[in-house]
Amino acid sequence: GVLGSGDFARSLAVRLVCSGFKVVVGSRNPKRKASLFPAAAEVTFQAEAVKKADVIFVAIFREHYSTLCDLADVLAGKILVDVSNNTEINHHKESNAEYLASLFPACIVVKGFNVVSAWTLQSGARDGNKQVLICSNNQEAKRTIAEIAQVMGFTPVDMGCMSSAREIENIPLRLLPAWKIPTFLALGLFLCFFTYNLIRQVIHPYIREQKNKLYKIPIEVVNTTLPCVSYVMLSLVYLPGVLAACSQLYYGTKYRRFPDWLDQWLLHRKQIGLLSFFCAALHAVYSLCLPMRRSHRYLLIETAVKQAVEKKMTIWVEEEVWRMEIYISVGIIALGLLSLLAITSLPSIANSLNWREFSFIQ
Amino acid sequence: GVLGSGDFARSLAVRLVCSGFKVVVGSRNPKRKASLFPAAAEVTFQAEAVKKADVIFVAIFREHYSTLCDLADVLAGKILVDVSNNTEINHHKESNAEYLASLFPACIVVKGFNVVSAWTLQSGARDGNKQVLICSNNQEAKRTIAEIAQVMGFTPVDMGCMSSAREIENIPLRLLPAWKIPTFLALGLFLCFFTYNLIRQVIHPYIREQKNKLYKIPIEVVNTTLPCVSYVMLSLVYLPGVLAACSQLYYGTKYRRFPDWLDQWLLHRKQIGLLSFFCAALHAVYSLCLPMRRSHRYLLIETAVKQAVEKKMTIWVEEEVWRMEIYISVGIIALGLLSLLAITSLPSIANSLNWREFSFIQ
Amino acid sequence: GVLGSGDFARSLAVRLVCSGFKVVVGSRNPKRKASLFPAAAEVTFQAEAVKKADVIFVAIFREHYSTLCDLADVLAGKILVDVSNNTEINHHKESNAEYLASLFPACIVVKGFNVVSAWTLQSGARDGNKQVLICSNNQEAKRTIAEIAQVMGFTPVDMGCMSSAREIENIPLRLLPAWKIPTFLALGLFLCFFTYNLIRQVIHPYIREQKNKLYKIPIEVVNTTLPCVSYVMLSLVYLPGVLAACSQLYYGTKYRRFPDWLDQWLLHRKQIGLLSFFCAALHAVYSLCLPMRRSHRYLLIETAVKQAVEKKMTIWVEEEVWRMEIYISVGIIALGLLSLLAITSLPSIANSLNWREFSFIQ
Repeated sequence: GVLGSGDFARSLAVRLVCSGFKVVVGSRNPKRKASLFPAAAEVTFQAEAVKKADVIFVAIFREHYSTLCDLADVLAGKILVDVSNNTEINHHKESNAEYLASLFPACIVVKGFNVVSAWTLQSGARDGNKQVLICSNNQEAKRTIAEIAQVMGFTPVDMGCMSSAREIENIPLRLLPAWKIPTFLALGLFLCFFTYNLIRQVIHPYIREQKNKLYKIPIEVVNTTLPCVSYVMLSLVYLPGVLAACSQLYYGTKYRRFPDWLDQWLLHRKQIGLLSFFCAALHAVYSLCLPMRRSHRYLLIETAVKQAVEKKMTIWVEEEVWRMEIYISVGIIALGLLSLLAITSLPSIANSLNWREFSFIQ
Repeated sequence: GVLGSGDFARSLAVRLVCSGFKVVVGSRNPKRKASLFPAAAEVTFQAEAVKKADVIFVAIFREHYSTLCDLADVLAGKILVDVSNNTEINHHKESNAEYLASLFPACIVVKGFNVVSAWTLQSGARDGNKQVLICSNNQEAKRTIAEIAQVMGFTPVDMGCMSSAREIENIPLRLLPAWKIPTFLALGLFLCFFTYNLIRQVIHPYIREQKNKLYKIPIEVVNTTLPCVSYVMLSLVYLPGVLAACSQLYYGTKYRRFPDWLDQWLLHRKQIGLLSFFCAALHAVYSLCLPMRRSHRYLLIETAVKQAVEKKMTIWVEEEVWRMEIYISVGIIALGLLSLLAITSLPSIANSLNWREFSFIQ
Repeated sequence: GVLGSGDFARSLAVRLVCSGFKVVVGSRNPKRKASLFPAAAEVTFQAEAVKKADVIFVAIFREHYSTLCDLADVLAGKILVDVSNNTEINHHKESNAEYLASLFPACIVVKGFNVVSAWTLQSGARDGNKQVLICSNNQEAKRTIAEIAQVMGFTPVDMGCMSSAREIENIPLRLLPAWKIPTFLALGLFLCFFTYNLIRQVIHPYIREQKNKLYKIPIEVVNTTLPCVSYVMLSLVYLPGVLAACSQLYYGTKYRRFPDWLDQWLLHRKQIGLLSFFCAALHAVYSLCLPMRRSHRYLLIETAVKQAVEKKMTIWVEEEVWRMEIYISVGIIALGLLSLLAITSLPSIANSLNWREFSFIQ
């Protein structure tokens, strides 16, 4: 059974019908709404739909839950699936599912399917996340809903008892929350270092020697900026651990909570580290591209021609040769080690490591 | 208990014995077959084996299921595990497990272990997929089989009720079905563009100016071909979405099914996108290799010598310098963004993103 | 309830309190220990704590389990969670959890939380592995503990019945066991080939022609060493398969166990293959860096100047040009194929492939 006639209710009905279930839709105006649903779904009045179904998807807004109170008698003993979402994180004191359960104490309420979009429901789980998070205080009902999700082509994930409902309802509202601060940090650092390098490599030679080096902006200036950002970010990964250790030594206990800013910082280390790796990898690619450039070619030929004309046979500077060889080989090793770190932060790799192995690699 | 004496039955017996289970093998000719099984497994007549075992693995072909009908009485109440596979996708109207269940209504049938090869069974799950997909209408039996799989070193995955059996039986017959069309498409596009570039860069200069540029075939011609393929593939990722939107606008509804070809196209977008990324990445590597080549070195020296002899000191062409700088930096940024897309298509990353985050990145 | 007052007991109490549970801590000296625990946790005598709790975490060493025997009466019927670890792999004949179960036959023993570190418990599961492996012979108790783990922010994983306890207890003691031999092998091979290349490219020219080529050590010598290591490692991946097939042909059966050394070798193939890929990838990066070096630039200019002075206009050697073009393009293709292999060894990709697809790619 599906209660509601919105976008989600319709997609749900389409998918249930496609998966071979018998679907009854309950609407307050079945005649007008019938055309919106697939032909195989029976559209009828709410009370009638509820009577015919054992599992009822409540696809209406939280604000309208109370309109169902007239149906309390027919609903008694049935499984209600709360598929609702909020518009803001922690909008209400109580999760929607817990609110529904409090309105209908005689029903078994299961939270689920809210992490799935109407589009995914309708077209089938094609790519992206196929998981349907389910929680309920009733094991049997949870299992029933999990099997329905399975048949619909999703991967049910048991999230435990009803107290997880709030967390499940917050999930679809997230937009990479852990990445916001680190990304802005990286952008800010990039801007600072870029300005400094621009002044140093382009504006200064122009003012002092009237040399036009503007062509350096897209690659060379960016390429000297990236490792600076990468280094600062990498140090920001390891700094909070040191600060936390100092704080523990200072207070003489491991069981005191860290101040909020330090806690937040500790929480964002992984993202900061990955951005640091991203900058380092970009720096490597930019550096590798340097000899491909026209300007590199022209400068090389210019030097060769100049020397040939002056009959100066050799320009080998041992020190410069060594500096470059060592710089490149250390850079490659550093990038190799950072890559290893980045790979172990993939969820499926991290899950196959125990704590000791993870610490060892870090 | 194991019924059957084929390759799979023997591997199953080996593995069960190794995992510490007491194994009884039922055969129609126990004397002749006993030598094929490990010494620790008791090989006896079918009826006797069935009597001694609570869980019976039916490792015989679907065609011979009916030969077990004589054992119906002794089998009653026992758990039968159907481990069979078909030779063709959707070969029979009914899945093997459902067919077995219809023959023995007094037994509890569980589908499982068919996704595992005889080799994996025998040598233990070393690498590759360690999952054993299990389905049954009986929760208790499913749990028993899951625990046996666990002890045998596999990861049991609950696939719900018996109606999933057909899907589970089709899995081992798959050979990257979603990749077939996109791969042939990429190869076809590569061939077309390669021919065009070959004519343009090698054959045409040879005919018109008698210049031998054959050395360009392995790297330069391939390198100009790859980005063309990558671009066309990338456009093929986004085109079907536009067409689908147009179709929805034209028909005025989101609930009408798309035509089959568009549906298939939408389903293959991920694979087309990954191949597009693969071509772009190869293009980047080929481009980075260009300055490593002997031919590049010779041409550079040739130009330098020519200029030195002519005492032409400078050849700086501002326009060409800028074109190359911009081309390279835009290329790097594009590849960086494509890499991000490719990383989010890893299953473990995709499962940690919600729908909103996934759409944001796409 | 938590029994014990060590580091793990305190972290456990902190986390349980933070997750909203009512916590009672049982200690032999509640007055002295109370200050160590969060204020919200009640610290009392062991017998009293046990009486008040239904689920009791036994956070004491295996050696002290017998000290709890006085509490046997009050403990009867309660769920005991064994969170202990050993200091050595397979230290005791019997796993700690099974030993605990044998001491208290009237209790339901569940193994769990031992794979989690005190630090993770206290600070919440931030990164790394969030899985809590749980096993027990009692389904209901296992489910209860799984839900507690869920609420605490971990991902419970059902590991089946109590016989898995030993395996679960060994997990935290592992330190990348499968990587040890392959890593030492790679380092050994690297050392051998490095020495050979050092003698050939640096020491020999120095002795014979007094040429100082020391600058070649950090990049060029390493770069000629890496592909040698990679080739030998790759051959070591495929050799044991051939040996295994030969052994099967020789003995005429697939069901005979391989000798131990061959078995170990077969088990390490994945790690050897990944190290081979790592060396090949490093070789690619080193090679791409070659034209960035000062020495490359100087040698190029030197050649150009020499030729210009001698007025030798062309030095094109068709054979050398072709050799390099073919070498590079074959190298790129080989690296592309190895990358594909490496990607399919990611756990989340491997789990989405069936046996046939996996073999096809390998």
